[in-house]
Amino acid sequence: MLHRAPMFEALAEHSRAGGRAFHVPGHKQRASFSHEEAAVYYDSIAALDVTELPDTDDLHHPIGSLLEAQQLAADCYGTDETRFLVGGSTAGNLAMILGQCEPGDLVIVQRNVHKSVIHGLMLAGARAVLLSPEIDPISGLGLLPHPERLDRALEQYPEARGVILTNPNYYGMTGDLAPLVRLVHERSIPVMVDEAHGPHFGFHPRFPSSALRSGADVVIHSAHKMLSAMTMGAMIHMQGDLLDRESIRQALRMVQSSSPSFPILASLDLARRQLQVEGAEAFSQALRALDTVLDKLAETPFRNLGAGKYRNKAVAYDPLKLVLFDETGMLDGFSLRDELGKRGCVAEMADSRYVVLAFGTGSIPEDGDALIQALFDIAGSFKITTVRASKVRSEEYRLSEEIPAPIVFRRKMPPSEAIPLEESAGRIAAEWVIPYPPGIPVLFPGEEIQPSAVNQLIQWRAKGAQIQGAEDSSLCRVRVLEK
Amino acid sequence: MLHRAPMFEALAEHSRAGGRAFHVPGHKQRASFSHEEAAVYYDSIAALDVTELPDTDDLHHPIGSLLEAQQLAADCYGTDETRFLVGGSTAGNLAMILGQCEPGDLVIVQRNVHKSVIHGLMLAGARAVLLSPEIDPISGLGLLPHPERLDRALEQYPEARGVILTNPNYYGMTGDLAPLVRLVHERSIPVMVDEAHGPHFGFHPRFPSSALRSGADVVIHSAHKMLSAMTMGAMIHMQGDLLDRESIRQALRMVQSSSPSFPILASLDLARRQLQVEGAEAFSQALRALDTVLDKLAETPFRNLGAGKYRNKAVAYDPLKLVLFDETGMLDGFSLRDELGKRGCVAEMADSRYVVLAFGTGSIPEDGDALIQALFDIAGSFKITTVRASKVRSEEYRLSEEIPAPIVFRRKMPPSEAIPLEESAGRIAAEWVIPYPPGIPVLFPGEEIQPSAVNQLIQWRAKGAQIQGAEDSSLCRVRVLEK
Repeated sequence: MLHRAPMFEALAEHSRAGGRAFHVPGHKQRASFSHEEAAVYYDSIAALDVTELPDTDDLHHPIGSLLEAQQLAADCYGTDETRFLVGGSTAGNLAMILGQCEPGDLVIVQRNVHKSVIHGLMLAGARAVLLSPEIDPISGLGLLPHPERLDRALEQYPEARGVILTNPNYYGMTGDLAPLVRLVHERSIPVMVDEAHGPHFGFHPRFPSSALRSGADVVIHSAHKMLSAMTMGAMIHMQGDLLDRESIRQALRMVQSSSPSFPILASLDLARRQLQVEGAEAFSQALRALDTVLDKLAETPFRNLGAGKYRNKAVAYDPLKLVLFDETGMLDGFSLRDELGKRGCVAEMADSRYVVLAFGTGSIPEDGDALIQALFDIAGSFKITTVRASKVRSEEYRLSEEIPAPIVFRRKMPPSEAIPLEESAGRIAAEWVIPYPPGIPVLFPGEEIQPSAVNQLIQWRAKGAQIQGAEDSSLCRVRVLEK
Repeated sequence: MLHRAPMFEALAEHSRAGGRAFHVPGHKQRASFSHEEAAVYYDSIAALDVTELPDTDDLHHPIGSLLEAQQLAADCYGTDETRFLVGGSTAGNLAMILGQCEPGDLVIVQRNVHKSVIHGLMLAGARAVLLSPEIDPISGLGLLPHPERLDRALEQYPEARGVILTNPNYYGMTGDLAPLVRLVHERSIPVMVDEAHGPHFGFHPRFPSSALRSGADVVIHSAHKMLSAMTMGAMIHMQGDLLDRESIRQALRMVQSSSPSFPILASLDLARRQLQVEGAEAFSQALRALDTVLDKLAETPFRNLGAGKYRNKAVAYDPLKLVLFDETGMLDGFSLRDELGKRGCVAEMADSRYVVLAFGTGSIPEDGDALIQALFDIAGSFKITTVRASKVRSEEYRLSEEIPAPIVFRRKMPPSEAIPLEESAGRIAAEWVIPYPPGIPVLFPGEEIQPSAVNQLIQWRAKGAQIQGAEDSSLCRVRVLEK
C-alpha cells in the first residue's frame, strides 16, 4: 500500500481513459496556448491538470483517492490527520489561526514568525502576546522562546487559546520543542508549529527530530522545500483532542482555491510515497553532495554555521541547509552569494553575513562538486587568506525579556507620522522594524513602543545593522500613529 | 511586444542558463520522486518550477518580467492594472473585499455569489446587504439584481463601501452590467465583479461584453476556465480611482502563498499572449466544435438553454457554455450527464434539469463530433421521443423584493438547534438553505429568517426542490441559533 500513490494514480487513470473534456480548465489537457517552446514544458503536465470529477475527488470534501492519499500521509508522519494544501504553508498558517481563534481570542506567539502567521492573526482578529525568542550567541539569529519565558506568559494569560511557534528558522536551526510543548499541554491548550522548512525532519538519522514527534498539535509543512512536491504543495497535520479540527478544516475551505491544482495535489502524494518507500535513502544523493563540500571546506576560508566552534550545542542543525560565510570577513553574505551565482551556483538566500544553500531530494552529487569548486575559485580570485581575524558574532543582540501586552494586528493602519526614534517611546508603531541580524521584528505595526525597544534600536542603529520594514532604513525616524 | 511572454521567457531563459539549484524547491527542477510513470508527466514542467530569484521576479513585489507580463495583461484587457493570481479567483474575491472593507463596513452584495465572496465578507468582518437577483423566467436561474432594487438599496444604505456582483452565472448567462455600474458610480463607490467564468468576454463577436467594458472597478477572472492557463491561474483587474488599490494589493499578499507557483504565473502570461496575438481566432476550434453540435441538435430531443424559445432576450449567453437538457423531461440533468460520461463525454456540471458543457481554447472540432454522436446515441438507447409535453420552467421561483437588514457572516456559529421550518420566522438561521434551482441561497447562516422566506421555502419544499446546505435536506426542520 505504501508503494501506491492513489491521488496520482487516479489522475493518470483518468488521463488514460481518454474521455473528452467538456469541463474546465479551458486547455482541455493540452498545452493549448499556441507557443511551441512553451508546449514542450506544459504538454505532459496538462494531462493531469483537471478539475473535480467523480473519479478525481474534491479537495474540500475528499471521499476517494485524495482521502486515501491524505490517510497515507498521516500514517507516514505518524499523526491523526493530514490535509494536503495547494496554497503553500501560507494556507496552513492562516487556517490554523482562523480555525482556533475567534475575534478577540488571545494567542501566545513568538516574535520571529513568518509573515503569514501575522496575516492569520490579522484576519482572525486575534490578540497576540509576542514572545522574544532566544538568540543564538554565535550567529545572532533567533531561535525559540525560552521555556521559562513561555511559562511566565502562560501564567499571565491563562485565557490563551494556543501557542504559535516557528521551528526551524530559515537557517535550519532548531531548538528543543518538547519542553515547550509540555508547558503548554499542562494548560490543556494546543501548540501550533510552523515547521515549513522541516518536512523531512525525522526521516534520516542526521536530521533533527520533528514537531509532531515533540507532541505539537498542529504542524505545517512546505513539502516543496526539501521534498519532491511542486511549489505551493504543503501539508497540515493535526493530532490530539485539544484542537477545534472542524473549524480548521472550515478555514482551509475559506483560504484555499475552490479550483485547486491537481498536479500539485498529486505531487504531494508522490512526495509522501517517496518518503515512505525510500525512507532515509531519499536523501542519500543530497547528503553525498553535502559531504563532498564539508570534507573540503576547511581548505577554504569559508565556514559552515553549526560546525566546529560555530556550533551551538543547544541547537540541532538541518544538514540540508548549508549556511556558509567567509570566516575572514572579506566577503559579506551578499557578495558571496553573487560570486557563487557567477559560477553557476544559485543560492537560496543571503544576509549581510551568511549564504543559505538548500539541498533536497532532487540534489545530486555533482552539485557538491560544483559548489566546492566554486568556493575554491572564489577564494583564489579574491586572494582570501585567513590573515584577518575571525570575528564570532557575540551577544550583540538582546531582546526584551518582558512579557508584553497583547496587540491586535490591524489590516489597515490609521493615519501616521514619522517622528525621531528617540522620541517614540510610548507611541504606537505604524510600521515593521526588523534589524538584520537577528531578523526578528523589534516593532510590529500596532505595537506600543517600549523604552527598552527604543534603547535596543538606538544601539543597533549605532552598530550599522540593516533595518528592514521601516520607511527610513537609517532609523533616524520611525513611523507612529498620529495622536 | 504582444508576441512576447516575458514571464515565461524569463523562466525558460533561467532553465537554459543551467545553473545548479541550491534553492527551493527540493526537486531541483527534476521530477525527483523516483516514480517512472509520474516522471513522464512532471519532468518538463519541473524545469520551470523555481522560486523567487534575481532573474525570476517576485509575485508580491514585482519589478521585472512579472511586472512586464502584468502590464501586457492590463493592456490586453484595456484596464489600468492587472495582477496575476496563483490562488484562483478565490484569492481575488477575498482580496477585493479585504482591501475595500474594514470590519463593520457595509457592502451591497447580490445573494447568488460564489462562496468565496461570503468567505471574504466573513474574513473582512463586513456587513452585507444581500440583494435578491432577478430570476430568468425560462430557466428559473438567478441573474443580476434589478437596477431598481439596487437603486433602493443604495438609497437606503448611502454608507455602502461598494457593490459586489457576479456575472455571468455558472450557466454562462450574463445580464447588462452597465446600468448597474452607472447607478453605483453616481454614488462614487466602486463596483466589484466576480467575472470568474468570463475571462474571454469581449474577445470574439459571439461572446458577451465584459465587465471591464461596462465600467466595473474591480474584475476577477479565472483564466484557467476558458483560456489556456493552468488551474488556479487567475487575474484581478483594477481601474479608476474609486478603489483603495494599495489595500487590495496588500490583501493579495495576505491571502496568497509566499512561495507562488511560477508554472502557473507563466501560464497566465502565455494565455494573455494567445488572446492578444490570435484574438478571436483563439476560439475558432471551440466554436467549430460547438457549431457541429448546434447544427444537429434539433434532430435530437435535447435543447440548448438560450436558443429558440428558451432564449431570454434580456440575457446574453456565453456560447462556450453549452447548457443542454432533455426537452421531453425523460432524462434529468444528472442522468444525462451520466449517460454522456458513459460515452466518453465528461461534463462540467449537472443539476436536476441541466447539463453544463464547457468549451475552451483547448477544445477541438472532434469534440463536437463526439458530443453530437453521444447525444444521438443516448436518444436512441432511451427511445426518447418528443411525445411528452415539453415543460418550460416558469416563474415558480420568487425571491423577496425587500431590501433586508445587513448581516455579518460569522466564521463560527454559536450553539444552534433544529426546529420546524414553520416555526422559524424571526429566528436567526444557523445554516445555508439553497434550493436548486435557482441555486440562490434563501437563508445564510446568521441571517434573520423573514416570514416571506419561510413561505417561499414551504412552497419549494412542496414542489420537491432539491435543498442544499441544510442538514435536513427534506427541510422539515431548519437549524437556528439557540435563543
